[in-house]
Amino acid sequence: MVDVDSFIEDAIAEIETELGDETAIIALSGGVDSSTAAALAYEAVGEQLVPVYVDTGLMRKEETAGIRETFAHMDTLRIVDAQGRFLDALSGIMDPEEKRHAIGKQFIREFETVAREVDASMLVQGTIYPDRIESEGTIKSHHNVGGLPEVVDFDGIVEPMQDLYKDEVREVARELGLDEVVSERMPFPGPGLAVRVLGEVTEEKLRVAREATAVVEDELDEYEPWQAFAAVLGKATGVKGDNRVHGWIIAVRSVESRDGMTARAQPLDWDVLQRIQSRVTGQLDSVSRVVYDVTHKPPATIEYE
Amino acid sequence: MVDVDSFIEDAIAEIETELGDETAIIALSGGVDSSTAAALAYEAVGEQLVPVYVDTGLMRKEETAGIRETFAHMDTLRIVDAQGRFLDALSGIMDPEEKRHAIGKQFIREFETVAREVDASMLVQGTIYPDRIESEGTIKSHHNVGGLPEVVDFDGIVEPMQDLYKDEVREVARELGLDEVVSERMPFPGPGLAVRVLGEVTEEKLRVAREATAVVEDELDEYEPWQAFAAVLGKATGVKGDNRVHGWIIAVRSVESRDGMTARAQPLDWDVLQRIQSRVTGQLDSVSRVVYDVTHKPPATIEYE
Repeated sequence: MVDVDSFIEDAIAEIETELGDETAIIALSGGVDSSTAAALAYEAVGEQLVPVYVDTGLMRKEETAGIRETFAHMDTLRIVDAQGRFLDALSGIMDPEEKRHAIGKQFIREFETVAREVDASMLVQGTIYPDRIESEGTIKSHHNVGGLPEVVDFDGIVEPMQDLYKDEVREVARELGLDEVVSERMPFPGPGLAVRVLGEVTEEKLRVAREATAVVEDELDEYEPWQAFAAVLGKATGVKGDNRVHGWIIAVRSVESRDGMTARAQPLDWDVLQRIQSRVTGQLDSVSRVVYDVTHKPPATIEYE
Repeated sequence: MVDVDSFIEDAIAEIETELGDETAIIALSGGVDSSTAAALAYEAVGEQLVPVYVDTGLMRKEETAGIRETFAHMDTLRIVDAQGRFLDALSGIMDPEEKRHAIGKQFIREFETVAREVDASMLVQGTIYPDRIESEGTIKSHHNVGGLPEVVDFDGIVEPMQDLYKDEVREVARELGLDEVVSERMPFPGPGLAVRVLGEVTEEKLRVAREATAVVEDELDEYEPWQAFAAVLGKATGVKGDNRVHGWIIAVRSVESRDGMTARAQPLDWDVLQRIQSRVTGQLDSVSRVVYDVTHKPPATIEYE
């Protein structure tokens, strides 16, 4: 990218041309990509843009409140409370691919309902360069909610950031005046916490992943990780008080990366790991063990499923 | 313990008195406790003692060969190949308590068969002080094969080391001239690798746990851990070559302890963790991720189930 200002100017002009008088819709995930794409499109066409945030229940702590605040100035913002429907759709599903498939399908259903209501004929997406590369291969299938264009019928799709890397997106976000919470926010997968709880998705596992992730984000801020989060791996024995318990194993993941295509596990100080361990097992009764993921990508992925 | 020599002398005298002319039997696990108790009893009554090693298939790499070598001088040594029967008994069982129960039951069955064949009326056990304390509480149920005395009918039980701590057992082992491999060997749970593979026990998981544990023991020798091993936690996504894979997550556990009743996770150097990660994921195609357990006991246990 030559220059942020001229990129923004060109992108806005392009969006204006492509959208014309049509109503456009964009799915907000809470992540920097979709937020920045929405901000760009809003600069271009104002309230012709309908930003839709589907609260899947698979989001980070306080994500929905954050969205509400960041996009408070957009009167067309739609927030759909779909938590119960997602849990139902995921009930009993153990296989990672099936989980993603169920989430994608439910997401499309929710999104389509809004698209019809507002009579949107155009779709704006926050696709960035690494997404396109990875979806060409077999590495990653649905980390960003793919499938929307194929299933919902739009006259056109606009992807203003399709040649940008993540750090360039952050520059654009800062330039557009998006809140730091958004512009500096770590990447978050489309299927959300569902890919951070192994096996069946349950409310309890989601709650544990959400609370533990808040502790991890808080403690690891100083390391400026590309991504840092907690995942729920399964259950192992522990001792709490005088009782033997069967509690969750929490994995802490913290990686450095430029674009997410490869990543390095970060060396963390022992006392920081101990603080995380102690806060997470102390705060969450049902957690008895914390492990630190020391694997790079490859051979691991950043996310767990 | 006042003095190793006088302990040994007294223990031998006590065993001689208690066993008289009876045939006694002892279950060898490959660990230091049962090996030392067997060595003591052999000093006392020679071939009135029948040491039985049940190869459950849940043992560490080369454990059976080690037993064969250590006890080569005891003509009464019996090695029972029960691998297939244990796998059958464990098939389909997910719950940790049920797993232990199935292992305990099968073990008793195997052991009882030999006890009848050799007409043993006395049982020697390598119980040590912390075992007695822990089995009084609810913390640990069957890490040492409990239940033998209740189910198999013996005229008496001899537990010559019931007041010793682990480090004292090691002193006795060294004094008795047991091989260093035995006297310095890390504790190993009665149900073996079964409590180090979460969920159902399968040959594949056991193989992975066994090979990964061999790498961990090799790399962590210099840290002189109380216990160091690998556990198989579940599957997560990874990338090997150009393919997305769903591979095993290996947990590395390494703790310091005096008696196993409490333990501290050991701070390990980052390059050692990286060497383990790289060796384990490189050597085992089906492993895509390595995590390091940073939890003390409490709130975790040393073992996983």
